[in-house]
Amino acid sequence: MGQMEKARPLVGIIMGSRSDLETMQDAARVLDELGVPYEMKVVSAHRTPDAMFAYAESAEGRGLKVIIAGAGGAAHLPGMTAAKTTLPVIGVPVFTSSLHGLDSLLSIVQMPGGVPVATVAIGKAGAKNAGLLAAQILALQYPELRAALAEYRAYMRQMVEESQP
Amino acid sequence: MGQMEKARPLVGIIMGSRSDLETMQDAARVLDELGVPYEMKVVSAHRTPDAMFAYAESAEGRGLKVIIAGAGGAAHLPGMTAAKTTLPVIGVPVFTSSLHGLDSLLSIVQMPGGVPVATVAIGKAGAKNAGLLAAQILALQYPELRAALAEYRAYMRQMVEESQP
Amino acid sequence: MGQMEKARPLVGIIMGSRSDLETMQDAARVLDELGVPYEMKVVSAHRTPDAMFAYAESAEGRGLKVIIAGAGGAAHLPGMTAAKTTLPVIGVPVFTSSLHGLDSLLSIVQMPGGVPVATVAIGKAGAKNAGLLAAQILALQYPELRAALAEYRAYMRQMVEESQP
Amino acid sequence: MGQMEKARPLVGIIMGSRSDLETMQDAARVLDELGVPYEMKVVSAHRTPDAMFAYAESAEGRGLKVIIAGAGGAAHLPGMTAAKTTLPVIGVPVFTSSLHGLDSLLSIVQMPGGVPVATVAIGKAGAKNAGLLAAQILALQYPELRAALAEYRAYMRQMVEESQP
Amino acid sequence: MGQMEKARPLVGIIMGSRSDLETMQDAARVLDELGVPYEMKVVSAHRTPDAMFAYAESAEGRGLKVIIAGAGGAAHLPGMTAAKTTLPVIGVPVFTSSLHGLDSLLSIVQMPGGVPVATVAIGKAGAKNAGLLAAQILALQYPELRAALAEYRAYMRQMVEESQP
Amino acid sequence: MGQMEKARPLVGIIMGSRSDLETMQDAARVLDELGVPYEMKVVSAHRTPDAMFAYAESAEGRGLKVIIAGAGGAAHLPGMTAAKTTLPVIGVPVFTSSLHGLDSLLSIVQMPGGVPVATVAIGKAGAKNAGLLAAQILALQYPELRAALAEYRAYMRQMVEESQP
Amino acid sequence: MGQMEKARPLVGIIMGSRSDLETMQDAARVLDELGVPYEMKVVSAHRTPDAMFAYAESAEGRGLKVIIAGAGGAAHLPGMTAAKTTLPVIGVPVFTSSLHGLDSLLSIVQMPGGVPVATVAIGKAGAKNAGLLAAQILALQYPELRAALAEYRAYMRQMVEESQP
Amino acid sequence: MGQMEKARPLVGIIMGSRSDLETMQDAARVLDELGVPYEMKVVSAHRTPDAMFAYAESAEGRGLKVIIAGAGGAAHLPGMTAAKTTLPVIGVPVFTSSLHGLDSLLSIVQMPGGVPVATVAIGKAGAKNAGLLAAQILALQYPELRAALAEYRAYMRQMVEESQP
Repeated sequence: MGQMEKARPLVGIIMGSRSDLETMQDAARVLDELGVPYEMKVVSAHRTPDAMFAYAESAEGRGLKVIIAGAGGAAHLPGMTAAKTTLPVIGVPVFTSSLHGLDSLLSIVQMPGGVPVATVAIGKAGAKNAGLLAAQILALQYPELRAALAEYRAYMRQMVEESQP
Repeated sequence: MGQMEKARPLVGIIMGSRSDLETMQDAARVLDELGVPYEMKVVSAHRTPDAMFAYAESAEGRGLKVIIAGAGGAAHLPGMTAAKTTLPVIGVPVFTSSLHGLDSLLSIVQMPGGVPVATVAIGKAGAKNAGLLAAQILALQYPELRAALAEYRAYMRQMVEESQP
Repeated sequence: MGQMEKARPLVGIIMGSRSDLETMQDAARVLDELGVPYEMKVVSAHRTPDAMFAYAESAEGRGLKVIIAGAGGAAHLPGMTAAKTTLPVIGVPVFTSSLHGLDSLLSIVQMPGGVPVATVAIGKAGAKNAGLLAAQILALQYPELRAALAEYRAYMRQMVEESQP
Repeated sequence: MGQMEKARPLVGIIMGSRSDLETMQDAARVLDELGVPYEMKVVSAHRTPDAMFAYAESAEGRGLKVIIAGAGGAAHLPGMTAAKTTLPVIGVPVFTSSLHGLDSLLSIVQMPGGVPVATVAIGKAGAKNAGLLAAQILALQYPELRAALAEYRAYMRQMVEESQP
Repeated sequence: MGQMEKARPLVGIIMGSRSDLETMQDAARVLDELGVPYEMKVVSAHRTPDAMFAYAESAEGRGLKVIIAGAGGAAHLPGMTAAKTTLPVIGVPVFTSSLHGLDSLLSIVQMPGGVPVATVAIGKAGAKNAGLLAAQILALQYPELRAALAEYRAYMRQMVEESQP
Repeated sequence: MGQMEKARPLVGIIMGSRSDLETMQDAARVLDELGVPYEMKVVSAHRTPDAMFAYAESAEGRGLKVIIAGAGGAAHLPGMTAAKTTLPVIGVPVFTSSLHGLDSLLSIVQMPGGVPVATVAIGKAGAKNAGLLAAQILALQYPELRAALAEYRAYMRQMVEESQP
Repeated sequence: MGQMEKARPLVGIIMGSRSDLETMQDAARVLDELGVPYEMKVVSAHRTPDAMFAYAESAEGRGLKVIIAGAGGAAHLPGMTAAKTTLPVIGVPVFTSSLHGLDSLLSIVQMPGGVPVATVAIGKAGAKNAGLLAAQILALQYPELRAALAEYRAYMRQMVEESQP
Repeated sequence: MGQMEKARPLVGIIMGSRSDLETMQDAARVLDELGVPYEMKVVSAHRTPDAMFAYAESAEGRGLKVIIAGAGGAAHLPGMTAAKTTLPVIGVPVFTSSLHGLDSLLSIVQMPGGVPVATVAIGKAGAKNAGLLAAQILALQYPELRAALAEYRAYMRQMVEESQP
């Protein structure tokens, strides 16, 4: 990955609960495929608010460039993380059994002017896209990632061609 | 108000933005009517996260018994305050121009198991009820409030009777 | 539990139908864990309206401090109970098969100014939080409960730490 | 109106608040046009619960045949009235400023099995139709009403014909 | 059932599709329990529009007093039947797999001023209540039904009492 | 317009109420611009059901090729017209004050398998597009319309270019 | 099928993903039943945007008369295809696991004035109706299709008659 | 702005219609305040699809680093732009009069796995945040922007402090 320091994560993937892992590992998987180093952690806005603040405050200093935060229901993790850092924060609305992630989506995307969260789709498609979006952001600095992303797109095109009925 | 220490606020009313004041003053008004001492402050989860944490952490020590928190959109103030104190937190979903407060409501009420927010209706009716709910909670300790609340109910009954077409 | 009179319930958990029990027992469970005495009853706003009124009217006299009311669909139990007592009433919107509890939520939370219901999340997370909120309200009077709640929070923090992927 | 006892109202129109009158008078107007005697009253489920129960319990004995109940938000008046009488109860969801009457609609229509409310459209169209539905129910017993309803339909047809662009 | 002519149905239960039968038989069941004679038929607004008009037009002449119409999705059967008769028409919104009956509900309840449909809850609870509402309407004329309905309510009360946890 | 018989309308624009005219004239306007002959009429599914059936039944015989039907609320006009003809029927959901046309949209688009309605957007944009869609359908037979539509698209492109900030 | 050139497809069925095939084959099935020649292809707006543009641009030249496009979520395929051709484009909102196709529906139907998409119901009923709508459009030119559609309607009527409970 | 080449825009702000300008200029304003060079253009996915593709394809080559795309209703501009470039694309859901931007939001955020759009809030708050998010992304490369963003946050904090009631 050339310029990218392998040993040091560039992306922090955090989630509000261990049960969000099934969704969020799709973000990790795509970062693995593209060769982007990352770290992964359960950080709960409501159960470990101080750990969340500490994580967000220290992120830039620790060398993280992008944070991906997934949460469900009254999903405060992405927005509160965004309030404590100026690194780009990507929010993944996790599916919920009652309102199917509409609550998660609105809790994440409807941020007031001043503190943005880059919100993606509800559930696993969103988590995958969070990984890709992080890579697209990093690719502005890491040219080798640009090539990897171009390949990824070519691969998707090919998959469509091979899936004809 | 007998037992109630006049000089010391028992209820903290906080709101995410000065523009929420028009809504939240209905909570203040009802506390005034019932003689409950309170304080009022703009505390933004996203713009002043540290001030929010400091407020929530110091609330019990400063003698507050109940916190009323109003916010709109991706409304994180009530839930994050609730994460930092075990005082009862009442959440008021403020009306929003795009989604009419449905976003505020879901962001406040859909808290995960472990950290409750006592949510009331969207907008001014909710703010008024937040004040009444705070008073109902305090009335468990302050018998004179129980009488004031009974009077308030009697007054409402009378208003209905006098409003016959 | 020191000051708390063990033999006498402080919290009344009521629900509109026996089928709500699976949801509402999460409120009971958390009260058990915190050592708060409670009672549990099926009281239907629509099928036993007089029993509901009798329950609400007698609640304060019987020593109850907080009422937790769960109901689904056109959920009138929390609001009507609140209309007949000035004790704090916590409403739990029970999940419904057609509208997934959105009907229950709106029927409970959108109370008119004058009669508040402290509404929590849809379903089992909401029921658990109803129990916690009741305990947080009681903790204003029962200092030993404050300690139990602090312990509960510490335990939640620890659970998050132990759930790292 | 022949068989219909003029002096004695057959329909009771109740509403949760004086502010619902603007909506509910459309029910009254259509009953006036069809010559159906009615009475009109503000009865609040939440502010005057005992008066509501008394009204519903005495309705049949006082000669009412149908009750029209309008309410907004967490609209409990139609359902609770229906719980206290076996007269047909027609529910009118009143428009609300935040959720536009969707909350009123779901609070009224989603009644559990056992206690029906005949729900009509949100707002003034619904109130008008509540009056017509009451008349259609009464027409089963009062043949002169059947003729009046047929005339009303003919008049509507003519209005359509006369409104051609 | 005394005055009720057994051989002649008083209630017509129609539904848009055979697949609605599972829902609609809850209307039939409650009419059976209360001893109200009824007929049951599949009549599709979209696939058999002429049969639907013929059914609605002939209903009063054939002695029907109330029509219960169930349909799902763009549910036009209740409203179109109501447009062709002045008998009371009760609409049952059938659950749908995509929008869970919200489409059915809005298609049935949001009738324009002039042609009411008495709408009940989505799905089987609504179908049961449609049967009860038909009986409550008929009870205005058939005193023996009033007694049957009172018994039904007493039975429901008893069921609640026997379901205590 | 060459092949198009000027004197004879090819498109029938119908609407449920005179108040829908403001919306529906955008369909007429675009047909005027493209030179497509049409007729316009108020036909109410609920107030003039027989006229609606007569209109739909006679449409093909009278030379109409496409029907555009606009309606609001429980919007049954497009679907019922579609049930009575195999001409393509385009449905325009008219904006409503309470549910903003979501009720109209679902009542029109969620047709059961067997009877399609070609649904367009809520309100005036939808009405305009209904006119364009009718023209696109007719263009399959009338080559001069294909040219007119191509010109229309070119004009739209130019408008975008001229609107640069 | 007489005039219809068997070897040359008149309808193009495209879908955003292979996983949409289960839904979209209901469109194919009904075209098979009516004897309308068609082609079927996976064309992704997001993964193969150039192939999509090429498909839409070449459609008319290749003899296609109608395009049916199915997609789910942020469903851009129907609208973008419609932007690149003046052939009628029918959009099928595919069911999605999180928002149940409401996202697909709004992404397809809410097209701005200028570029219409003929939208049908969510899911398989919509796909079937897309096939029927395509046939109804083609029937304007192919008289033998008109007969086939009439037969189809007659068959549906018979199915209703045979499904009586 | 030091390293930032003033003459060359780093951010491309595009919008589907001139009428979106009122919303989108809040993105421009914040970029002006932070000293980030940008360009602004009306590019319609539906009316100028080829221009949109040309814009997206040439963006990276022309030196753009981030694209902000605003659109309303069936908002396809952000997603289609994202399909044609691997630069980060930020989507702004523009408020709509019928569905208040919920249609715009779902059309933008619910992208399928493979092609992300970084979605922000509905309306002007979202546009402002789109500008800030673009700046946060650029700040990874331009250290002077990091300082500007930190100042911006400090300013926001001060504004909250000065807005106390």
